[in-house]
Amino acid sequence: MTRLQLYDKIRDKESFLCVGLDTDIAKIPKHLLKEDDPIFSFNKQIIDATHQYAVAYKPNIAFYEAQGTKGWESLEKTMDYIPDNIFKIADAKRADIGNTSAMYAKAFFERMNFDAITVSPYMGHDSIKPFLEFERKWVIILAATSNSGSLDFQHLLVEDGSESLHERVIRKSSEWGNKNNTMFVVGATRVESLVNIRRLIPDHFLLIPGVGAQGGDLHSVCHYGMNSRCGLIVNASRSILYADSSPNFAEAAGTEAKKLQVQLAQYLQNM
Amino acid sequence: MTRLQLYDKIRDKESFLCVGLDTDIAKIPKHLLKEDDPIFSFNKQIIDATHQYAVAYKPNIAFYEAQGTKGWESLEKTMDYIPDNIFKIADAKRADIGNTSAMYAKAFFERMNFDAITVSPYMGHDSIKPFLEFERKWVIILAATSNSGSLDFQHLLVEDGSESLHERVIRKSSEWGNKNNTMFVVGATRVESLVNIRRLIPDHFLLIPGVGAQGGDLHSVCHYGMNSRCGLIVNASRSILYADSSPNFAEAAGTEAKKLQVQLAQYLQNM
Repeated sequence: MTRLQLYDKIRDKESFLCVGLDTDIAKIPKHLLKEDDPIFSFNKQIIDATHQYAVAYKPNIAFYEAQGTKGWESLEKTMDYIPDNIFKIADAKRADIGNTSAMYAKAFFERMNFDAITVSPYMGHDSIKPFLEFERKWVIILAATSNSGSLDFQHLLVEDGSESLHERVIRKSSEWGNKNNTMFVVGATRVESLVNIRRLIPDHFLLIPGVGAQGGDLHSVCHYGMNSRCGLIVNASRSILYADSSPNFAEAAGTEAKKLQVQLAQYLQNM
Repeated sequence: MTRLQLYDKIRDKESFLCVGLDTDIAKIPKHLLKEDDPIFSFNKQIIDATHQYAVAYKPNIAFYEAQGTKGWESLEKTMDYIPDNIFKIADAKRADIGNTSAMYAKAFFERMNFDAITVSPYMGHDSIKPFLEFERKWVIILAATSNSGSLDFQHLLVEDGSESLHERVIRKSSEWGNKNNTMFVVGATRVESLVNIRRLIPDHFLLIPGVGAQGGDLHSVCHYGMNSRCGLIVNASRSILYADSSPNFAEAAGTEAKKLQVQLAQYLQNM
């Protein structure tokens, strides 16, 4: 999916919501456990109930790997089930030396048809570039993440002290690709960093986790993070997936997703 | 496996060689492709031919994921096949927010019985700590990697300029665990960094990739990197796995592994 197609999708649906599929077998409603593939059954109903409010889905790969081969099957089935015109993000936080990143790219872009993958910048350019060789595919590079550990290294001042590590990461890595194949992760809890980030990359899309269960502030995110083509994808996972633990979980998830979509639509009004 | 058990193993085998199982279906001998599970067949023969010379195996997870569900099965079978008393490293370069790292830990430590996993430090303490909650399991944190992209961020000076990012990573993250559950990755091409690294962590094990195909210098690595309990695990992948592409590949791999073991044994003589 291209940047303009994604923007069109956002306008059509009046939404820039991404639903994170962090599907935890220990948290899904108990009645699903008797099904052949409880994780896929759960995802299927969540997708049915939320797809009209979302422009993207983001399976969190760890939750599938924790189930071994069976989990990988659930992931493949989920990918086949997500409608074609929705942006699909592998939340995988990968990146390794070149020949290895090429293998991860193959796994997520060729074998499973994800549109994008989250990657860690620590190993530098040759760990990211193999992902950028795929047409119409995206890397989403970790910049300023939402968790408390992000303060350990990402906000350290580097070199002459004129910028922080995550700013250097953005400045440097935005040159490896461009606004048409690179996004950055900025946690909703890192609003104070958004102004500088937008100065560095006015046109790139940002993936914003941390709204919802992690407590980020949507209004500030939109105020400081949006650009003329929206430029944001806001992710919510647990607040939607686990809105209700009864057999009505999907309906509750749909209600929660719609609530967020209505909020997001307001920020799109003047676009 | 504990640190002392690992050291005992190194003395017994007169080796600190790790064989990297970066098994690429495009590179294995053609006659294996008619087998049910060519990747496992290849690994099985490589393990048979090299296990007496190696203290560790390190499957590179990307190469298995690139084959989808089938690749995950090959990985599980390979893990079952590696002898119990050999240290097993998941080269996965994972780490994410806490609840997600906990899932990766479950995948690699519980479901597959790896002894260790390589992790990226960019997201900080809460992305690493879930792995440290498992007894007798290890994290191996990326510090100064062997690839050219490592120069993009890992060697930047941080804060007052008194240390580089990878030194800060080592200093900070060595406090999250200890020498009994934490190792660091230092590429064999980064010998100039080893002196300072050993000043920061005299007792920790270092995992050293980049000897062999990537061209690192074994003598310098041992000279600057060894400590009184060896303190090194040296990895070779491609130079062993693909020493020969004929049906005699396993014998050639064994010869190559033995050649390295004989070299390594010399450095252990005074221990």
